[in-house]
Amino acid sequence: MTGREGGAPLAPLGNSPVVVLVRPQLADNIGAVARAMANGGLFHLRLVAPRDGWPQERAWRTASGADRILDALSLHQTVGDAVSDLHHVHATCPRPRHIIKPVLTARGAAAELRAICARPGLRAGILFGPERAGLERDDMACADALVRFPLNPAFMSLNLAQAVMVMAYEWWTAAEQTAPRALVTHETRVATKGELDNFLRHLTAELDACGFLDNLPKRPGMVRNIRHFFERGEATEQELRTLHGVVTELARGRRQRGRQGE
Amino acid sequence: MTGREGGAPLAPLGNSPVVVLVRPQLADNIGAVARAMANGGLFHLRLVAPRDGWPQERAWRTASGADRILDALSLHQTVGDAVSDLHHVHATCPRPRHIIKPVLTARGAAAELRAICARPGLRAGILFGPERAGLERDDMACADALVRFPLNPAFMSLNLAQAVMVMAYEWWTAAEQTAPRALVTHETRVATKGELDNFLRHLTAELDACGFLDNLPKRPGMVRNIRHFFERGEATEQELRTLHGVVTELARGRRQRGRQGE
Repeated sequence: MTGREGGAPLAPLGNSPVVVLVRPQLADNIGAVARAMANGGLFHLRLVAPRDGWPQERAWRTASGADRILDALSLHQTVGDAVSDLHHVHATCPRPRHIIKPVLTARGAAAELRAICARPGLRAGILFGPERAGLERDDMACADALVRFPLNPAFMSLNLAQAVMVMAYEWWTAAEQTAPRALVTHETRVATKGELDNFLRHLTAELDACGFLDNLPKRPGMVRNIRHFFERGEATEQELRTLHGVVTELARGRRQRGRQGE
Repeated sequence: MTGREGGAPLAPLGNSPVVVLVRPQLADNIGAVARAMANGGLFHLRLVAPRDGWPQERAWRTASGADRILDALSLHQTVGDAVSDLHHVHATCPRPRHIIKPVLTARGAAAELRAICARPGLRAGILFGPERAGLERDDMACADALVRFPLNPAFMSLNLAQAVMVMAYEWWTAAEQTAPRALVTHETRVATKGELDNFLRHLTAELDACGFLDNLPKRPGMVRNIRHFFERGEATEQELRTLHGVVTELARGRRQRGRQGE
């Protein structure tokens, strides 16, 4: 505890993995890690031998309200101590060399962590290495599996908080059911085909009245092309009412000008 | 251009979406955005009316080598100007209110962006709003669809570079074929069942010799339990050779001590 109080409520969500930062160097990053954890619904943070000691005021500044995660974190001298009460440990590792270990993608790891955390009594953790060098071989030997993010191999410099963000994001989305695409309509709704047809008859009637469709051989194709455009956009009932008004007003203006010109 | 040269090669990968930062406030974030873009294979950056002007030395410091993205970015006065040559525009928006527009998840957006960018001649872009307030309604009205990241609704404060990181990560992984779990074996390989059986016969013979399996009624169950453990770990050929050595040496020590004790 640091004596600081408050910060955002973070809505803990049952059993979630522990994030273990191994020998982190920058307090700014520790705070940014807490913020990313809160974004993705991870709440348990442990620090192993932070370079500049702990607590560090700067971390609370970059946590952007995720104070509770920093207030509640635990300090450890060794990786072994930090993971001793956990049942499964994943270690992030950009380039596994000379290590014989299962390697998971971030998405694969998130799915496994969800499965582990759903089993009664099991606790899981994810190790992240220090900014400059990453985890050492002895750290990785403590893990059940390694996690390697699929990212641009031509540019591997991944910020610590960004790495935690990707993992936290995958942890969250592993339990998400949001449709990949949905039309948000709020108080209105998608128009029925009948409502759209009603609008198109209104439009066509006004286009007939103003002479836009006077070329009779071309008329069916023109009407069809206009329909193709309006069918494509998944119009809402509210938008169709607006479009009815637009057509009516445009036509009224033309009629009035026509009358004035008589 | 800023006169700076060098930075990491970023291995451009054909047609990729343009990242448009709308009225960004902090140069640190612009640099961190460039770094996240390089991580995820996005290379084209545009700035609309950055609050503190451009260029800003600090951005190159936080870009961590993604200099080429900053060197090549373009400056624009308005969102309309920044997107005028693009064919599809997505706008990130944490809470779409009173907007009738398709809303995509980050994953859904990445899949659509991959599909759009695979079509000849089409260019796509993604808008990100300023740190404090996000995009304004007029900005979002310019977009084909909104993108809302599925993240913890109890903690929505998402750093700008973190938002770009999630989108860049999804862009990259949308074209990834990496298996979610694979055993990395480097110069060795997973052992065959025959090799494992050979080791288990060696182990069982030594356990018989030292009397560990002398309880004959329990012997089959004990042998089976040992086999269960060794079958589970997907041993490699190299590890089995090490284990053969471990068993041989342990047994040799016992025999020598036994001989000395005679």
